[in-house]
Amino acid sequence: MAKVTGLTCLKCGRRHGAGEFILCPDCGLDGILDVEYDYDAIKHSLRRNPLRGRAERSIWRYADMLPTSGLGSDMPEAGVAQSGGGLGGAAGLRIGWTPLYKFPRLGRAARHENLYIKDDTGNPSASLKDRASAVAVAMALEAGASGIACASTGNAASSLAVVSASVGLESYIFVPKTIPGPKLYQIGACAEGIFRVDGTYEDAFEVATAAIERWGWHNRNCGINPYLVEGKKTCSLEIYEQLGYRVPDWVVVPVGDGCIISGQWKAFKELRLLGETACVPRMLAVQAEGAKPIVDAFLAGGDVVPVKASTIADSIRVGQPRNWRKALRAVRESNGSAVSVSDREIVEAMLLLGKRAGVFAEPAGATGLAGLMKAVTTGLVAPEEVAVVLVTGSGLKDPSSLEKEIKICDVGRDLASVERCLRSR
Amino acid sequence: MAKVTGLTCLKCGRRHGAGEFILCPDCGLDGILDVEYDYDAIKHSLRRNPLRGRAERSIWRYADMLPTSGLGSDMPEAGVAQSGGGLGGAAGLRIGWTPLYKFPRLGRAARHENLYIKDDTGNPSASLKDRASAVAVAMALEAGASGIACASTGNAASSLAVVSASVGLESYIFVPKTIPGPKLYQIGACAEGIFRVDGTYEDAFEVATAAIERWGWHNRNCGINPYLVEGKKTCSLEIYEQLGYRVPDWVVVPVGDGCIISGQWKAFKELRLLGETACVPRMLAVQAEGAKPIVDAFLAGGDVVPVKASTIADSIRVGQPRNWRKALRAVRESNGSAVSVSDREIVEAMLLLGKRAGVFAEPAGATGLAGLMKAVTTGLVAPEEVAVVLVTGSGLKDPSSLEKEIKICDVGRDLASVERCLRSR
Repeated sequence: MAKVTGLTCLKCGRRHGAGEFILCPDCGLDGILDVEYDYDAIKHSLRRNPLRGRAERSIWRYADMLPTSGLGSDMPEAGVAQSGGGLGGAAGLRIGWTPLYKFPRLGRAARHENLYIKDDTGNPSASLKDRASAVAVAMALEAGASGIACASTGNAASSLAVVSASVGLESYIFVPKTIPGPKLYQIGACAEGIFRVDGTYEDAFEVATAAIERWGWHNRNCGINPYLVEGKKTCSLEIYEQLGYRVPDWVVVPVGDGCIISGQWKAFKELRLLGETACVPRMLAVQAEGAKPIVDAFLAGGDVVPVKASTIADSIRVGQPRNWRKALRAVRESNGSAVSVSDREIVEAMLLLGKRAGVFAEPAGATGLAGLMKAVTTGLVAPEEVAVVLVTGSGLKDPSSLEKEIKICDVGRDLASVERCLRSR
Repeated sequence: MAKVTGLTCLKCGRRHGAGEFILCPDCGLDGILDVEYDYDAIKHSLRRNPLRGRAERSIWRYADMLPTSGLGSDMPEAGVAQSGGGLGGAAGLRIGWTPLYKFPRLGRAARHENLYIKDDTGNPSASLKDRASAVAVAMALEAGASGIACASTGNAASSLAVVSASVGLESYIFVPKTIPGPKLYQIGACAEGIFRVDGTYEDAFEVATAAIERWGWHNRNCGINPYLVEGKKTCSLEIYEQLGYRVPDWVVVPVGDGCIISGQWKAFKELRLLGETACVPRMLAVQAEGAKPIVDAFLAGGDVVPVKASTIADSIRVGQPRNWRKALRAVRESNGSAVSVSDREIVEAMLLLGKRAGVFAEPAGATGLAGLMKAVTTGLVAPEEVAVVLVTGSGLKDPSSLEKEIKICDVGRDLASVERCLRSR
């Protein structure tokens, strides 16, 4: 089933055949492609096998809306030990169908009762990136690739290492010298090869690109491989189903390179195109104040101008986003908006998520909540509007960000010191 | 529905009424209780609503086999935003129904093709302990407790903080001075109060016990509260279902205090008692060489003698296990066995799990696999026997344990140095 019908360049608009390129040859690194499908075939598949009747609870529930072939939505349940099931026929990790929560106490604290949390921290590598890695790995297996590679500062890399290892595909990860320990060890425990490049993320990216070319590995670089966005869109397909087949008013997304928000928007656009829904949500892009080129471009009504990035939110510390065209299109087409939040607001959102919901997010993972709270304060998001906030990664990946924020009571071996602490709170 | 009919002391054998005590008043800290149910009522419930027809995919799938009241297995799906669903009627985190995997490459590397991995790293706090915390928190809510507390060095504490926060129950966590940073921050992000006691784990335990008495909090101390084992048994109820309603030959469990293995054994005993299954598995207890009082007691055929514990496997670094009677009973009654493994074998199991399955486990989480591999080598576990290994916690909770084990290739910005690394592997 060759469902991908073509790839259109976001910059020059030229259309390429399926499988020919992963970047527009005329536009180079700036020529990110958009994946198009045979939507009539998908409509037929959805009529024959409607979403609400499907048993599979992983991203492969949406196999007929993804670019991978050979996967049916009638496969054995992912993560339940039966023959096969998972990635391209190989047994693989269970990815997706993460919970959508409504926590009334969090809603009250955030001053928005219509607040839902889409919690992607429970994916195998503890971030949303697994959705993209799964699609990339399945396509690499289908193409018979000898290995798969990427450059990354963290989540994309650990995700690729974990998902590849689960199906026996060799992964080669290029990281910059500055990568924090926990992420390095997670990658190192699972990857076939980990290369620490003497330089910045951009240097690692260049070495990775050259190595991919030289050794013929599959390319999982974010903002290059257009199929990654396809994997990410499963998150919003789930939101639609888990809301009881309703479309929220807002989907709130932390934005770095711009791939995640692009995937969420594509999901809802395709649901409308397929006749599943009549309306689409507005997309709210949230960036950290110290790394907000996409917010700036949205407010200025122009293109992205690279900035020097600085924020505690490691996973969205991106000064030169690679997928900015798709991200800006998502915001503009959806009649959405873009806001930025301070590191202080991000930390406060982390603590709110923890103490009011028990969801431990990394700084980037809590940035969406901080942005929604700002949008509620300014009146951009109205009280009656349903807002779904994506929590994209676990706090365990970057726990030290809370080092100075945690109030610890140091006590002796007596109750008196405990009582003093309890009183002083 | 008051399904608990009584609690029997494992030491003196005396039977107490439901809800009277959480420890045998005659035996004190040594008087761990065993929870008994009205099994006829459960049989009736299972006939009316058989396991294989249930829709819920969380620990509340087994509500009629748990000590909590007021929970039906016909509740809305956990983690799907609908009204309520979860803990005692309050919305709560989705816990349990974690994947059971069969990874052929891992099976070959571990020299046991009939190997299954029960991966509990994807629970909300990234460990199996969430199953126990959920039951404790639900019971605390039912009892109208003002708060819940425990002393812990890590997973039990972060689990309690996370699960409590999700339903608005205040949690008070007592930790020893030596707790590592990542665990401290996860707890601190979610708990109502975190008390760092100037002393050892035993000191923290004593202060916690006194504080629980003083302020009337619910007691979630491991190896004290007998209902925690009930939550943990859901893991093996899932294994039975996910294996296609078959009982494995072996269930392999890392053992510290002894609560987890006790829960797994109780699940299978109860399935047999309820007429669901005709047979039970053998339990294989695995401890680290530097902390193996239960292995020693099993081999000597006697009671546990406390030892000074030392191992990299933080979560099972227990020299004086509190629930040793239940753990030894599980091994002996099941005609099981107990083995110990070196820290080196634990690290090798971590790397095997990572590179052959994409499962990133903390050292204690990989200890089961190390133990199975030893048992396969000695012939204790035969090739044709189905062995399920529990992976109890995520490597993200203790990533630095791999610091010296990860082989990182330091490269320049040229392909030549990458090529040298690839060749030298």
